[in-house]
Amino acid sequence: MTDPRLARLDAQVDFLKEADKLKSVLRATPLIDGSRRENSAEHSWHICLHAMVLADQAAPDVSIDRVIRMLLLHDIVEIDAGDAPIHGDVDHAAMAAKEAAAARRLFGLLPGDQGVDFLALWEEFEAAETPDAQFAKAIDRFQSPVINLENGGGSWVEYKVTLDQLDTRVGKPINRGAPGLWSWLRPRLADFFDKHMRKQAG
Amino acid sequence: MTDPRLARLDAQVDFLKEADKLKSVLRATPLIDGSRRENSAEHSWHICLHAMVLADQAAPDVSIDRVIRMLLLHDIVEIDAGDAPIHGDVDHAAMAAKEAAAARRLFGLLPGDQGVDFLALWEEFEAAETPDAQFAKAIDRFQSPVINLENGGGSWVEYKVTLDQLDTRVGKPINRGAPGLWSWLRPRLADFFDKHMRKQAG
Repeated sequence: MTDPRLARLDAQVDFLKEADKLKSVLRATPLIDGSRRENSAEHSWHICLHAMVLADQAAPDVSIDRVIRMLLLHDIVEIDAGDAPIHGDVDHAAMAAKEAAAARRLFGLLPGDQGVDFLALWEEFEAAETPDAQFAKAIDRFQSPVINLENGGGSWVEYKVTLDQLDTRVGKPINRGAPGLWSWLRPRLADFFDKHMRKQAG
Repeated sequence: MTDPRLARLDAQVDFLKEADKLKSVLRATPLIDGSRRENSAEHSWHICLHAMVLADQAAPDVSIDRVIRMLLLHDIVEIDAGDAPIHGDVDHAAMAAKEAAAARRLFGLLPGDQGVDFLALWEEFEAAETPDAQFAKAIDRFQSPVINLENGGGSWVEYKVTLDQLDTRVGKPINRGAPGLWSWLRPRLADFFDKHMRKQAG
């Protein structure tokens, strides 16, 4: 008979091996040096680091450690569902269904109790209703604009994004979870669009 | 006069932008699918996920949240110092000095209090004396062999590694911080080397 502790570890390692595939999911945003597009695994690391560094931008009732755990998990569904660029033309209901199925399959690789916990944390992030999830969403939205400001517009150019679109798709979630970050970012975006992206508006 | 809260955020964002460079530091280990070498940023994400998933392999006094924070930071020094492959021919004293200088420069980009905290956490990881650091080291050592077992030997082939070397360089730190993981891994390594790596011994 199989030792249940060993069977548990087998399942955990299977999940971790499957997670390796997130390193091959490419996002719309390039690296700051413009050398290539960012993948979702290194993006996940970078935003966890953002949460740790920018902790003092969170509301007092936010647990940064829970936020980091959410952000470690939040993109894993892209292994099955792919990355939906925030400025792309996406059928949001279809994408949500695809991601929910991906979450069930991927977290289902884990031992039962752990799979349930991970799925609940992912669903909390997606729902964006708790203070932890709202801060996590804000951090996730903050990183790409900072990168695009550094590399000449990055995905804004490719997707012909306007400042109005950024106010809606990026500004609202950042302002809800981390208003200090939006106060810092908004004038920089306005200045950048005024100087470099006028053609987009025309 | 500059608002001190804004100056603090400027410094934090500068650090996060500099950290983007970790995505371009390549490690010796390939991805599981063998398509390319792993970079240190996506590696950091993957081992943080390992720490979260394999938490039940840690001693009871280990704080997984502190371990995850350590692992988020532990490779950042490679931006200046590069990655030293575990099986490579490395001058360890020179490398340690280079990494210490890198840690001072990189964490020095942060606001003073935060830079001190991050440096202390990195030094705790490097010293590998506390239970948190020993579990973090074990997790860091566990991931690459699991990948190499999946992709035909990976960096073991390139560096002509023997099972004896793995027992010393990988087995000891894993066994110290997470003995259950070494009990799981060791027979798999022995089996793999017996079947596929006999030539290395000759």
